[in-house]
Amino acid sequence: MANKDSTLGIQYDKLEDTNAWYTEVITKSGLIEYTDVSGCYILRPKAQYIWDTIRNYMDKKLRARGVRNASFPLFIPEHLLMKEKEHVEGFSPEVAWVTHAGNSKLAERLAVRPTSETIMYPAYAKWIRSYNDLPLKLNQWCSVVRWEFKHPMPFLRSREFHWQEGHTAFATQEEAKAEATDILLNVYKKTYEELLAIPSLAGYKSEKEKFAGAVRTLSLEMFLPIGKAIQGCTTHYLGQNFSKPFNIIFLDKDQKKKHPHQNSWGFSTRSIGIMVMMHSDSRGLVLPPKVAEHKVIIIPIFTKSNRDEILKYALSIKKKLSKFNPILDAREQYSVGWKLNEAELNGVPIRIEVGKRELADKSVTLVRRDTLEKQSVSIRRLERRVKDELQAMHQNLFKRAEQFLESSIVEETKELKKIVAYVKAKRVVKTVYDGARETDEIIKEKTGAKTLVIPFKEKLKQGLRCPFSGNPAKHVVYIARSL
Amino acid sequence: MANKDSTLGIQYDKLEDTNAWYTEVITKSGLIEYTDVSGCYILRPKAQYIWDTIRNYMDKKLRARGVRNASFPLFIPEHLLMKEKEHVEGFSPEVAWVTHAGNSKLAERLAVRPTSETIMYPAYAKWIRSYNDLPLKLNQWCSVVRWEFKHPMPFLRSREFHWQEGHTAFATQEEAKAEATDILLNVYKKTYEELLAIPSLAGYKSEKEKFAGAVRTLSLEMFLPIGKAIQGCTTHYLGQNFSKPFNIIFLDKDQKKKHPHQNSWGFSTRSIGIMVMMHSDSRGLVLPPKVAEHKVIIIPIFTKSNRDEILKYALSIKKKLSKFNPILDAREQYSVGWKLNEAELNGVPIRIEVGKRELADKSVTLVRRDTLEKQSVSIRRLERRVKDELQAMHQNLFKRAEQFLESSIVEETKELKKIVAYVKAKRVVKTVYDGARETDEIIKEKTGAKTLVIPFKEKLKQGLRCPFSGNPAKHVVYIARSL
Repeated sequence: MANKDSTLGIQYDKLEDTNAWYTEVITKSGLIEYTDVSGCYILRPKAQYIWDTIRNYMDKKLRARGVRNASFPLFIPEHLLMKEKEHVEGFSPEVAWVTHAGNSKLAERLAVRPTSETIMYPAYAKWIRSYNDLPLKLNQWCSVVRWEFKHPMPFLRSREFHWQEGHTAFATQEEAKAEATDILLNVYKKTYEELLAIPSLAGYKSEKEKFAGAVRTLSLEMFLPIGKAIQGCTTHYLGQNFSKPFNIIFLDKDQKKKHPHQNSWGFSTRSIGIMVMMHSDSRGLVLPPKVAEHKVIIIPIFTKSNRDEILKYALSIKKKLSKFNPILDAREQYSVGWKLNEAELNGVPIRIEVGKRELADKSVTLVRRDTLEKQSVSIRRLERRVKDELQAMHQNLFKRAEQFLESSIVEETKELKKIVAYVKAKRVVKTVYDGARETDEIIKEKTGAKTLVIPFKEKLKQGLRCPFSGNPAKHVVYIARSL
Repeated sequence: MANKDSTLGIQYDKLEDTNAWYTEVITKSGLIEYTDVSGCYILRPKAQYIWDTIRNYMDKKLRARGVRNASFPLFIPEHLLMKEKEHVEGFSPEVAWVTHAGNSKLAERLAVRPTSETIMYPAYAKWIRSYNDLPLKLNQWCSVVRWEFKHPMPFLRSREFHWQEGHTAFATQEEAKAEATDILLNVYKKTYEELLAIPSLAGYKSEKEKFAGAVRTLSLEMFLPIGKAIQGCTTHYLGQNFSKPFNIIFLDKDQKKKHPHQNSWGFSTRSIGIMVMMHSDSRGLVLPPKVAEHKVIIIPIFTKSNRDEILKYALSIKKKLSKFNPILDAREQYSVGWKLNEAELNGVPIRIEVGKRELADKSVTLVRRDTLEKQSVSIRRLERRVKDELQAMHQNLFKRAEQFLESSIVEETKELKKIVAYVKAKRVVKTVYDGARETDEIIKEKTGAKTLVIPFKEKLKQGLRCPFSGNPAKHVVYIARSL
């Protein structure tokens, strides 16, 4: 389904008009279609393929950790949503409410789940009786609804989004905390790195930025080429904040009744938006090879006189490369130039051109989407070469993003003026602060930045003061402007 | 998580008190947990495993047919739901309506999707321009909500349920009709047979029973051991009933503008309920091996004196059978009797007992869940034997259900009195009728039965009259009481 009616190429500039550029890339490349419901989007097959790939990859890792999939109801009765005070306050301004069924008014309003703690944990209270029932580790793949009133952006800030949410319960605090770190670093960070070629900063969220109801939130933060940070995903150590109001009690080995320690953690389709923002360019989408449904597109270049032999040659190459699920673009109503542009717009990792010269040489011209450099490859070595180039492309995308992140970080722990200037210059500032809620507000006000994360292994120098409040510094922290 | 607080076994009789028996089986075996929202249930990991297995199996078959996955929004604006007259009338009495977001009233009510035709097809109108864009074949895995006011039953009649819905568009009527049959017979019927060991009757639904908005609905019907029929899944040929109001138009090869012919088709978690009803018994769940997460449970029988050597032996068997994902039930706080009962309740396809005698013999005692017969198997042959027994169990479940179905069918095309008596005797009656909507009503009134399906290849004898209306007979039809 080509965009025959609109201009093919990308018209807006990534850095100068980011939102318009982003919208063009995701719609013209066929990831997203808009609908009549503001903030709700269609994930077209290309986007769904990315999400299904993430799902399969992550499910394996979760199963290896004893996490099992389940499905909990879409609807949460109002009285359940209200059980944990901070949680309610965090979510109720954004809840979509079902009030009627058919022509009848419901006795109690039902929230469309914004997250599932409050519909899951009454069941946890039934299932967990003794230490033998712990740990309990469940996960569900579903969509959730948060009716934000800010300007919506597909993937990045949508009213309905897809995610997995893991909900686990442990006998001890230590086990719970260890799992929150394990999922963040060994599942989520790996998914970002190995599938989406995206590096990140890991750490704790500030008191102000943590999840509503959590004791502690852990997060991955990405830094985008447009000079803004974005939160990639989070894991939450909930402590006993939910097990107490939801009356989850187990009889421990010592015969004492205790509340388990809980975690929840989620990874969403926001990751696809971050992937687009990170790698795509003025020609359109750049898809990391592992999440590309079609890893190769073959474009035959022919005239009337050599059409049949070129197509035959192209077809033999398609067969040779079948494990990469190649497209053969043999359409005759489009020019070669159009096809090349479209392949770039669509982000196909490797483009292979075959014409008269290639046929004579028994070779192909191979172009990687990230470098756009042309290479001649003998068909004898083609299969192996494609494999290598896909791997090299993944590495290159990751390295590029990593170098950008590293070169963006600047350390300044003392002078507020310098910090303000660095933030303005689109840098990530590694600084120190006192960790107080109010100080997050001061940082926002004075610099325009948000706190991203407090790194796990902080090396806080003695005697430093918080450059924002003047209080003694308690944490190392990364700050930057956020999307 | 054993049900330590309640009686372990099944107390109600499948035939005499079906609903209570069903509820006991699905809750005590750990498939389902009830929630505070009436009609909405938790699919526990065991049920989710069945559903994920169906999903993976079906996805492969659909991909081979060029069907691609996508995700469309959960919400449908009221004006879109209203576009196709019969469709609205069919669904609006059961729609859950979102009216508020946070504290704001929405400008237009949003339906929580009861099915997705009306949110998908405006996008189809954008994507389909020429015959080159056809066929368009998309599928989504999601949950839908139909707020039925009848007594809800988990899986079989729930207000939220999980399904896949395929939505396809073709240039010609022939292609569309052929696909509706292909999906029914080569995807759905195969899924029921090969995964769930369930046979079915295939055919067309009557005018009265077809999908709201369809030209024609095709269906699989199952006949349960309780003597009632149930609809297993459906495919719909929608004709141009939606492509016209939704303004889906393509330019055909002949340069004429045309409306495509569409299908929609769905397979839901109802299939899991049918599986329970079909195979399970007075001891609890019977799981067809292909959808059992754990295909084997090993129960060691030991005393204090031989505990260690028996457990060691049991562990070696667990290792040997690792590809069947076995459970080793080494819990010491439960008696062997309790464990055997629990394994039966949980429906584990193969139970392996190992005690003193087995250790001495280098054998195990193997018990298949469907036959409950004990067999001694040498450990040298164990792996192969388990594989064979799992296959044999699948075959046996299918054959048993098939024989029951076949023996339940009785043909009677003339005497209404006999038809009434057969229906009362819990038979499936193969009869004839005139196909009119009103005649479905007469059948219901006079016999208590519903029309199930009109078989695809009817052999209607000349000159027969409809035994219900007296009009000339038009179709062969199966009728029976329905769940």
